[in-house]
Amino acid sequence: MPSTTASRMEAFSDGVFSIASTLLVLEIALRPPGTALEQLVHTWPAYLAYTISFMTIGAAWLGHSSITDRLVRADPLLLRINLLLLFVVAFLPFPTKLIAEALGDRNDERVFVTMYGLTLLTMRLLLTAVDTHARHARLYSDAEADEELQTDRETILGVGIAYGVAILVGLVFPTAAVLLYLALGVLLVVPFQHLRRMLFSPD
Amino acid sequence: MPSTTASRMEAFSDGVFSIASTLLVLEIALRPPGTALEQLVHTWPAYLAYTISFMTIGAAWLGHSSITDRLVRADPLLLRINLLLLFVVAFLPFPTKLIAEALGDRNDERVFVTMYGLTLLTMRLLLTAVDTHARHARLYSDAEADEELQTDRETILGVGIAYGVAILVGLVFPTAAVLLYLALGVLLVVPFQHLRRMLFSPD
Amino acid sequence: MPSTTASRMEAFSDGVFSIASTLLVLEIALRPPGTALEQLVHTWPAYLAYTISFMTIGAAWLGHSSITDRLVRADPLLLRINLLLLFVVAFLPFPTKLIAEALGDRNDERVFVTMYGLTLLTMRLLLTAVDTHARHARLYSDAEADEELQTDRETILGVGIAYGVAILVGLVFPTAAVLLYLALGVLLVVPFQHLRRMLFSPD
Amino acid sequence: MPSTTASRMEAFSDGVFSIASTLLVLEIALRPPGTALEQLVHTWPAYLAYTISFMTIGAAWLGHSSITDRLVRADPLLLRINLLLLFVVAFLPFPTKLIAEALGDRNDERVFVTMYGLTLLTMRLLLTAVDTHARHARLYSDAEADEELQTDRETILGVGIAYGVAILVGLVFPTAAVLLYLALGVLLVVPFQHLRRMLFSPD
Repeated sequence: MPSTTASRMEAFSDGVFSIASTLLVLEIALRPPGTALEQLVHTWPAYLAYTISFMTIGAAWLGHSSITDRLVRADPLLLRINLLLLFVVAFLPFPTKLIAEALGDRNDERVFVTMYGLTLLTMRLLLTAVDTHARHARLYSDAEADEELQTDRETILGVGIAYGVAILVGLVFPTAAVLLYLALGVLLVVPFQHLRRMLFSPD
Repeated sequence: MPSTTASRMEAFSDGVFSIASTLLVLEIALRPPGTALEQLVHTWPAYLAYTISFMTIGAAWLGHSSITDRLVRADPLLLRINLLLLFVVAFLPFPTKLIAEALGDRNDERVFVTMYGLTLLTMRLLLTAVDTHARHARLYSDAEADEELQTDRETILGVGIAYGVAILVGLVFPTAAVLLYLALGVLLVVPFQHLRRMLFSPD
Repeated sequence: MPSTTASRMEAFSDGVFSIASTLLVLEIALRPPGTALEQLVHTWPAYLAYTISFMTIGAAWLGHSSITDRLVRADPLLLRINLLLLFVVAFLPFPTKLIAEALGDRNDERVFVTMYGLTLLTMRLLLTAVDTHARHARLYSDAEADEELQTDRETILGVGIAYGVAILVGLVFPTAAVLLYLALGVLLVVPFQHLRRMLFSPD
Repeated sequence: MPSTTASRMEAFSDGVFSIASTLLVLEIALRPPGTALEQLVHTWPAYLAYTISFMTIGAAWLGHSSITDRLVRADPLLLRINLLLLFVVAFLPFPTKLIAEALGDRNDERVFVTMYGLTLLTMRLLLTAVDTHARHARLYSDAEADEELQTDRETILGVGIAYGVAILVGLVFPTAAVLLYLALGVLLVVPFQHLRRMLFSPD
């Protein structure tokens, strides 16, 4: 990525991604009654929320770096869509705090879990928008294989549908939706193709 | 931008821009009475303040990267003016928190909205100062088109006047001023020239 | 390290390392009763916790940069193991806060000190995992000396065992374990080989 | 600075410098009794503390980038001295918060102002140590002028003595010491040589 604007887009994005994922820890607080060990155990909703948000930001960062890897230049519109994506990434610690406080505790769980899911979905959609614009405006190098593009599109559609389903599930079973968000975050981070290649073609 | 001092100026600036915009979220807190949904809705001033500050920092970052894009070197004075700009950017979360708490709630709204507007105006003025010094000290590459400079100057004057007007409006109608700040932040981020070119010259 | 993915891995990692180590300071708070000087002195557990965590993150950063120094490229699995490492680094401010509050104060010290030690050990193990994968997947340049590798392996084993011992000690004498963590953090940062070479071969 | 270790030292340092200076704002809180305007005015100690700390970190960053500018490589000891410097930079928000709360308010001002001054002095000394080691270990490029080195040494000695005097003054007149710290921070940031050259040699 030779253009300096594109490299500052990377630097600013890496800043927001890393800060948002590190700030999440500030929201973890012990849940008082009981011994030290009981308090540590009762804090599980905060660990769970931290893990899901960190993994989802991590997955977005992986997607983002595979985008910038292929970029040869950035245009003004790309910088703006990217800014919107960062707007949502930087916002994530707030809904994360809300579900950490609500989980297993209050009956307003449902509202906060839905808001959390919508934030995750919006983040994914904006990541897709960055990629889609880069393709249409021909900001990528030609070296990119078309086959890979095809796989990407299927993944994107699948992930979007999965988040939509999880949000609907959450309207009835909030805790189940949270587990689905965890599963999605982990799935997006696990390098299946790479692992399959490593296991079956011991080069 | 080949000079290493100039590249560290970029790195330090990207750090402050990204941290300041991400710290904004720490100031968002639910507004208690009511159900979960009511509390989420009553928190609107915090969302509004977050959005305006994020967009204004984002617009300053866009302006800043279009400056560093054209820099061939940095001189000592440029580093110092830039440091003053970052001083104001890093300060922004404080007035943001104040208007988030004051909006629609207390009658001290006016004072906080004015202070917020002055901070935004100072940020814009210092961004202009960085650019002006870079021009006078011939720190830019020659490749830069004079036409673009002309457009820039008009934009700068217009934006300065707009902030001045919004601050004056705020002395009487604080909420209206806040909406003007939002409009200005969004306007500065939307890539009008680029969109016009995309729509009318379908290359 | 010429690959752009590898360089973004560095940037994101440097972001998380530097933010996690700087956020630690937010957890330092004066311990009230007494004069100003007495309060400053009573705050020693917070200074101690800050110092250990900063030094341990610093040591991990030193190890991480000696890894990325030798990388010629990054593969998908490396990025994911690195993400797990950052997950633990970003989490560290939480156990740091817990021991800062517990030390010399409550009898739940033992639980928090054990959790802290487990976090430090996990961080070291994941750093080793990044290095091990990079070797097995041949992501390093060939220029790397085999002798250096051997030394590294011994160090890694030694450090792992030392953390294990410190955690076991902490089950009986929590404060002693904390001092062992401090010693390990400092030892990992002091450049013994370099100092020996400087002292005995005055080139 | 072509070495990758040296460039990661820059990246990690820029991270800590920018985060520490941005976190300072989190410690600013309105001082309650009175109208909105009165509260804003009563908050002056927090603005003053923010300004001094930001300027002093800014000055250290300027010194640090003039060091890394001349570096051709980094050795293990340089990375460790630099880590100690960052340890103090990252710690600064804590004494900053203390003087912001103490100024004009409590009679424990003296203790906190002394601690603050000692932190600033340690930061300067460690910055000098980074520079001194880089010279002795011949980590700088040869292009560096000897004349410039001479000026640097005088400045360093002068600044060290000035901080020492300010700390002693603070034992009797804490507020006067705070103003001296402000003056020193500003003096270190103002580019006197550059301004003199600009004014007297209108090239």
